[in-house]
Amino acid sequence: MRFVTLRRSDGTTSAAELVDGAAKLFDAPDVGALITLRAQGREVATTGELDASGLDLAPVVTAPGKIICVGANYKAHLAEMGVDVPDHPTLFAKYSESLIGPEDDIALPAMSHAMDWEAELAYVIGTEIRRGSEAEARDAIAGYTVTNDITARDVQFRTMQWLQGKTFEGTNPLGPLLVTPDEVDHADDLEITCTVNGEVMQSARTSDMVFPPAAVVSYLSHIVTLKPGDLILGGTPSGVGHARKPPVALEARDVVVTSVESIGTLTNPCVRESSSTTGEDKSGAAA
Amino acid sequence: MRFVTLRRSDGTTSAAELVDGAAKLFDAPDVGALITLRAQGREVATTGELDASGLDLAPVVTAPGKIICVGANYKAHLAEMGVDVPDHPTLFAKYSESLIGPEDDIALPAMSHAMDWEAELAYVIGTEIRRGSEAEARDAIAGYTVTNDITARDVQFRTMQWLQGKTFEGTNPLGPLLVTPDEVDHADDLEITCTVNGEVMQSARTSDMVFPPAAVVSYLSHIVTLKPGDLILGGTPSGVGHARKPPVALEARDVVVTSVESIGTLTNPCVRESSSTTGEDKSGAAA
Repeated sequence: MRFVTLRRSDGTTSAAELVDGAAKLFDAPDVGALITLRAQGREVATTGELDASGLDLAPVVTAPGKIICVGANYKAHLAEMGVDVPDHPTLFAKYSESLIGPEDDIALPAMSHAMDWEAELAYVIGTEIRRGSEAEARDAIAGYTVTNDITARDVQFRTMQWLQGKTFEGTNPLGPLLVTPDEVDHADDLEITCTVNGEVMQSARTSDMVFPPAAVVSYLSHIVTLKPGDLILGGTPSGVGHARKPPVALEARDVVVTSVESIGTLTNPCVRESSSTTGEDKSGAAA
Repeated sequence: MRFVTLRRSDGTTSAAELVDGAAKLFDAPDVGALITLRAQGREVATTGELDASGLDLAPVVTAPGKIICVGANYKAHLAEMGVDVPDHPTLFAKYSESLIGPEDDIALPAMSHAMDWEAELAYVIGTEIRRGSEAEARDAIAGYTVTNDITARDVQFRTMQWLQGKTFEGTNPLGPLLVTPDEVDHADDLEITCTVNGEVMQSARTSDMVFPPAAVVSYLSHIVTLKPGDLILGGTPSGVGHARKPPVALEARDVVVTSVESIGTLTNPCVRESSSTTGEDKSGAAA
């Protein structure tokens, strides 16, 4: 099954399933809510049908209770960097305000001059899991989608903790589809790519992950309960702009295309935010 | 004004204001929801009144949209560590499943053998703010409360990113009260202390912060929109167990008491989680 969250002309959003060229709408504001309602054993009514072409798509989950990101998770990338394979996944967070739809503009913020791409497989929790084995974790995944963990490298490295460079508003595309595990063999071995203005920047296979989805979900579930709709960003392979010689950053009018084989493609143009303030000034305004 | 979130005998929670020994209940499940509804300009009905003594208190905000934590934020602590005063706040996240009430047990997880205390001033956003000055940020704060950012040091330092050691389920007390800024002069200069089994482990003043609340809120607002109910943990002063010689960790039956002058006190006993799995094993269970 393939699900989307679409924007309606009245300003609301709606979860839908794509079936034979049609989008069958559900009485749920996004795919995260649809998953949550179904996990509660509730019947979710269908509310109509639209032609599946030309839909205006929102992030496939719009307001996950948690967004958990995995870093340093592709073996070839670690080898290239001369880093040993880690014993534990590197984990950090971002907030839902960073999420954008699969064809939305990426907002290059005034505070950063080093916005970078990170193509990733993402996955969404379908059933609550706490202290689960990897087999239980695999069964707890509702489906797979595509994301780009767009990162402000300069802000990321202002301090040792990456959060502030990872959660800029309106930067992180997600979607277009949530694809159920049965359709893609749990995304065990799919090609993942990122191009910028048509040039291939990242190309890898999900089978190269140190911590595949079931391992990440099991590990996390020993720390905190994962709930339906929670979103996990699975880590990026080699080829980011920051690691290039010389480093490359995204500029206004660049177009970032992010794909995972058999799941979907994100196409996001970059737009520079206009802002009279940069966030650098913490001197003047104290009351 | 002083607000609490209390647990009802029917299993629900309710926001309340403490007035003259009474808790005046509102039609809102927690203080975060109360703040959010009022920020939307909605009238929130009162639903009754209880004696304010002997209440069973929940975390004062139970489900904030974001929890943002500040690290390395007290000057004396930085000096003690030989670290320069930073130009930017260190920021990381935790998830709401970590929150517990002001007298709840702290769950020492099976995965960690180095649980540590971090007494902190916390503050809650009252009105939406985006790219705000420090004066605007100060006005956007709904009130102040007390927290202890209980941390699994061993898990925190498994990788470079601290999240996994900071967000164990049921570890982070928050409350008892949200106190409005007018009652405590914006918490600009209050004593903050942590005792364990009656021994003073941390004692400092909030005036020693490198980035006081208004500076943190302004800075964050240039990255992402802050919304009513969002929770910020303001950083901890010196005296954590990890920095002692030899290091000290929390054990079962330890009692952690965390106070901020004029705001409130948390009293939390530690209880060791029983669990047959430790989260260490990622070998056996793969499907």
